[in-house]
Amino acid sequence: MEYTVRLAVKEDCRDIMRMIRELAEYNKQANKVQITEEVLKKDGFGDNPFYKCFVVELCSGQKSKEGFTVVGYALYFIVYSTWEGPFLHLEDLYVMQEFRGTGMGKKLISKVAEVCVERNFSRLQLVALDWNQMAMDFYMKKGAVDLTTSESWHMMRFQGEALKDLALNET
Amino acid sequence: MEYTVRLAVKEDCRDIMRMIRELAEYNKQANKVQITEEVLKKDGFGDNPFYKCFVVELCSGQKSKEGFTVVGYALYFIVYSTWEGPFLHLEDLYVMQEFRGTGMGKKLISKVAEVCVERNFSRLQLVALDWNQMAMDFYMKKGAVDLTTSESWHMMRFQGEALKDLALNET
Repeated sequence: MEYTVRLAVKEDCRDIMRMIRELAEYNKQANKVQITEEVLKKDGFGDNPFYKCFVVELCSGQKSKEGFTVVGYALYFIVYSTWEGPFLHLEDLYVMQEFRGTGMGKKLISKVAEVCVERNFSRLQLVALDWNQMAMDFYMKKGAVDLTTSESWHMMRFQGEALKDLALNET
Repeated sequence: MEYTVRLAVKEDCRDIMRMIRELAEYNKQANKVQITEEVLKKDGFGDNPFYKCFVVELCSGQKSKEGFTVVGYALYFIVYSTWEGPFLHLEDLYVMQEFRGTGMGKKLISKVAEVCVERNFSRLQLVALDWNQMAMDFYMKKGAVDLTTSESWHMMRFQGEALKDLALNET
């Protein structure tokens, strides 16, 4: 299977958006996807992009069953630690089901790690769901530390009414 | 106690850096702080700043015991969800010990939530350590959802040799 992993361009947003939906379906959360291809274009390819993305593209005229040539993506952005400075957060890592087991996921995360090393960022971070054993195993096997297990880090979120109340300083 | 909460300027970096160290000491991790005042200036006040920050400043000539007028900070940055678009991550929220219980922490997080609401961001997110009961209680009382408990989200990190190996695609 011949393929290249390259930085996404604006024209990839249709494929990325399709795969964002596929990943959400895989996580049984398809109804939570609120952004659109247009939003994704604006957010990633304007003057101050919110994210960067690598995609896997099949070579030599190969296509997926449904006729797609872009079959995986890794979307990431810079975050900041007040101890160590900037580093990368990997938001999504996805390879279409028929191409799993070919090393594409490994190649994608490796490219993101390369960006870290090149920019002298000391960390690459991500969030995994502990029922997704395949993902957890993949990351652990590659040497990731699970900070939630080892240091009891909890992800907290304000949204909806709680966020509005917080802004009004009324909680 | 009179005080204002305002956006930090470059000249606040000395105070912010001092408080980053105080917070790390409170978390018993003082040795992990690797950045310096100069790095903090460069990272937050250049052309493409990695973070934004609110500070609490005492008014009317008031000072802390050690003579400081900037006595708290909330440091945050934009992150990205492929379901909902950009939102804010609160990296640090800190108020010097002698000023706790005066509502400063509440005012600081409220200001960050205001930025979310103004920019139409749907979430404000943060990470808390579950042994820090005071912090966990503070956020939960204000309506935060603990995603680690409710949805089993785990924070994972690659660093050091694991990150280098990942970049070399050799793991």
